[in-house]
Amino acid sequence: MFPCNPQSALKEKRVAIVGCPFSGGQARGGVDFGPEHMINAGLIDQVKELGWDVTFEGHQQFEQLKPAANEDPDVGRLKNPRYVSAVTKAVSGVVEKHCKRGEFPLTVGGDHSLAIGTVSGVMAAYPDACLVWVDAHADINTPHSTPSGNIHGCPLSFVTGAAEPCPDVFSWVPKCLPFERIAYIGLRDLDPVEKQILRENNVCAYTMHHVDKYGIGRVVEMALERINPGLQRPIHLSFDVDAMDPAVAPATGTPVRGGLTWREGMYICEALHETGKLVAMDLMEVNPVLGASEQEVQATVHAGLSLARCALGETLL
Amino acid sequence: MFPCNPQSALKEKRVAIVGCPFSGGQARGGVDFGPEHMINAGLIDQVKELGWDVTFEGHQQFEQLKPAANEDPDVGRLKNPRYVSAVTKAVSGVVEKHCKRGEFPLTVGGDHSLAIGTVSGVMAAYPDACLVWVDAHADINTPHSTPSGNIHGCPLSFVTGAAEPCPDVFSWVPKCLPFERIAYIGLRDLDPVEKQILRENNVCAYTMHHVDKYGIGRVVEMALERINPGLQRPIHLSFDVDAMDPAVAPATGTPVRGGLTWREGMYICEALHETGKLVAMDLMEVNPVLGASEQEVQATVHAGLSLARCALGETLL
Amino acid sequence: MFPCNPQSALKEKRVAIVGCPFSGGQARGGVDFGPEHMINAGLIDQVKELGWDVTFEGHQQFEQLKPAANEDPDVGRLKNPRYVSAVTKAVSGVVEKHCKRGEFPLTVGGDHSLAIGTVSGVMAAYPDACLVWVDAHADINTPHSTPSGNIHGCPLSFVTGAAEPCPDVFSWVPKCLPFERIAYIGLRDLDPVEKQILRENNVCAYTMHHVDKYGIGRVVEMALERINPGLQRPIHLSFDVDAMDPAVAPATGTPVRGGLTWREGMYICEALHETGKLVAMDLMEVNPVLGASEQEVQATVHAGLSLARCALGETLL
Ligand SMILES: [Mn+2]
Ligand SMILES: [Mn+2]
Ligand SMILES: [Mn+2]
Ligand SMILES: [Mn+2]
Ligand SMILES: [Mn+2]
Ligand SMILES: [Mn+2]
Repeated sequence: MFPCNPQSALKEKRVAIVGCPFSGGQARGGVDFGPEHMINAGLIDQVKELGWDVTFEGHQQFEQLKPAANEDPDVGRLKNPRYVSAVTKAVSGVVEKHCKRGEFPLTVGGDHSLAIGTVSGVMAAYPDACLVWVDAHADINTPHSTPSGNIHGCPLSFVTGAAEPCPDVFSWVPKCLPFERIAYIGLRDLDPVEKQILRENNVCAYTMHHVDKYGIGRVVEMALERINPGLQRPIHLSFDVDAMDPAVAPATGTPVRGGLTWREGMYICEALHETGKLVAMDLMEVNPVLGASEQEVQATVHAGLSLARCALGETLL
Repeated sequence: MFPCNPQSALKEKRVAIVGCPFSGGQARGGVDFGPEHMINAGLIDQVKELGWDVTFEGHQQFEQLKPAANEDPDVGRLKNPRYVSAVTKAVSGVVEKHCKRGEFPLTVGGDHSLAIGTVSGVMAAYPDACLVWVDAHADINTPHSTPSGNIHGCPLSFVTGAAEPCPDVFSWVPKCLPFERIAYIGLRDLDPVEKQILRENNVCAYTMHHVDKYGIGRVVEMALERINPGLQRPIHLSFDVDAMDPAVAPATGTPVRGGLTWREGMYICEALHETGKLVAMDLMEVNPVLGASEQEVQATVHAGLSLARCALGETLL
Repeated sequence: MFPCNPQSALKEKRVAIVGCPFSGGQARGGVDFGPEHMINAGLIDQVKELGWDVTFEGHQQFEQLKPAANEDPDVGRLKNPRYVSAVTKAVSGVVEKHCKRGEFPLTVGGDHSLAIGTVSGVMAAYPDACLVWVDAHADINTPHSTPSGNIHGCPLSFVTGAAEPCPDVFSWVPKCLPFERIAYIGLRDLDPVEKQILRENNVCAYTMHHVDKYGIGRVVEMALERINPGLQRPIHLSFDVDAMDPAVAPATGTPVRGGLTWREGMYICEALHETGKLVAMDLMEVNPVLGASEQEVQATVHAGLSLARCALGETLL
């Protein structure tokens, strides 16, 4: 009831906020405003109040990485491939740097293609890390299977090697994450090839069906037992805000009915914090342009802030 | 996590959609438009996409069964008794026929009095079947106890024999379903005599209190252990959309606060599908006229479609 | 499934409704209209329908206890100290009287400072009783720690002795409730000193995190095992309607996101009734003035009525 939460994976409580105003991994404008809204709503001070030193050196500047209008043609089905590759390569370096300094990178998106960068960056610093991916979507389409060509639906195919052969544009991406170290929570909208990849590789995947069946408490427990027995591994949490039910977080690009409740989302973050092994977090797909009202935008930003705080040690008691 | 779901109770994957535009078992117009809305919203194609052969020979024609204006006086408290009896007898024959052909009858209502037909039809084909009744209501008032006289609140009293002595108008209905083969899920609005019948006959009844207490996963498990140990029996699922919370399925005749969440409703259908023993489903009480807005109607129809898909094998993974 | 619920702690089924139109323990007007709204909405008849004799001798009259405008200056941080003290002392006497007559006092607030009276009154009659406190807040700030000076955030510091040294104005309040006989459910907004008091005294406290983790069924079970093993003790339930999610009970003074669902709230009351040991209930902080619409007011009053009925034996089955 009164857990002691040694953040044992990190020696010091230092968070580096990595603001990533990027929307090139999908088609809807506005998700690039996510980081600005999160910062303006008080992210830095809220994390400081939890006892962390916080560094934030301004949002990442991706404009200079953007190819000219006609210099980034599709590669196969992939849209904006050079732009996404350059941005995620930069993010990878930044995240790796923070990790190696012993800091906790909190990467705020932006669209989920950014995870090509965050996952490869975390794995470069912590080769034995595991990944908890909280999302309505599996984001593991390959360059060949993606129906839309939006790379935010593909990041896990790059870092796991499911995308092989990988287009040259992404040749820098290491195959750094074994399938057996991924746990999904919150899935409810998968493409057929994604289902196939998960089944063939026996990936630990808890859909909303499992959340209903076992409850969120047991789901997190089982996920960790599976990918991180004995809690030996550092944990990277990549949280797509569309994992939450649209009633809770409506301002996002690909909302899907039947998602996590407010409390279930917070619970996941709280429980991962309690392990003491969380070393990095992504908070993705808050799109302030897509709220039907200012209230919907505020609700979504508020949910994002609360998820971050819970992952960084805020407790109810 | 990746269950193998042999639909072992059926040799082939063939669904027969039985559209029943009928509202004579209750007082509010509009529920007779339910089947049309479900078909127009894509039911047939959605079931086909799950790998089933689908037959749909047009909606049942009940007009010719309707007595003239003054030729169907109440019998005791029962309203429209001859009309309900004739319609449900016809439905019983259709459902029995489909079952005996090895098809899965998906009966789309229409009001829940239709279950006099679906239950007796299923039991004629599968005398050892059991019934999972998902509903806010127990629908087991007798011809003598019904406060309203609306027969949609009585179907289970006819098929279990609780209605005995049965009015002559319904003398065709067989006492075909033993109490110990019924499991209720979602109950929250029962009349006193209904509570008494359930208690006296020790019927397996999980109210919303039990859903809260045990979680939906354990409730379905316990219900099946009780009425279908070892999963030896074929299962008939009769789903009244008012089992869902009115926030999820508002367009229905007798909504009751505190119902199943979207996910709990889907979970029941998914879990019954996983047994491999589901042989028939009713989807009842979608009333497109009763939505407060077009959005409420769409939400309810969408919920109904999703329930049917889940019962027929749609999975998140 | 069909529990037998001997209300064994009471020999007869007699409820005494204690209406407490009081708002002096906090700053927002309107909560003093709560009891009137509850009565007008049918509380008395609804309790009678559950088979209880009900007495209600009109609302308590607190006006004559109110000090003149400038005769109740703050004591330390505490606002309206003399008024709150006089009112809660009166309530304490009334509640004790009803308990000693073998009646079940149902105290309807008004703000939660009233619990200084209800708890001390119940403990005077049942010195071995335990307390289940359902609230978003711990209400255990001391006269020194309270940030606001509103005494509705402090009642448990008085009756447990955490407030010592107690201001003279409250010298009548007995230290009557040991920490190990309190169980909190629903907590999600605590001040730092409150967290410290709970930790230092190892108080049984289930936050919303625990409700998510274990489910409400297991939470109630664990709470009772901890403070009332073998169900030997009489139980006092003090229910602050702000424990419910604001979507369910919006018309209250200090709503906090992420609260109990309708069903979870009812479940707690049903489960405590089932113990047969419930001897008193407070229903607090319904503030009809604070609804954003008449519908929000009605929803909150309706929730309050339903909580009372569930605690007094209403069951779904
Ligand atoms: Mn997503
Ligand atoms: Mn995603
Ligand atoms: Mn119903
Ligand atoms: Mn029904
Ligand atoms: Mn409160
Ligand atoms: Mn309170």
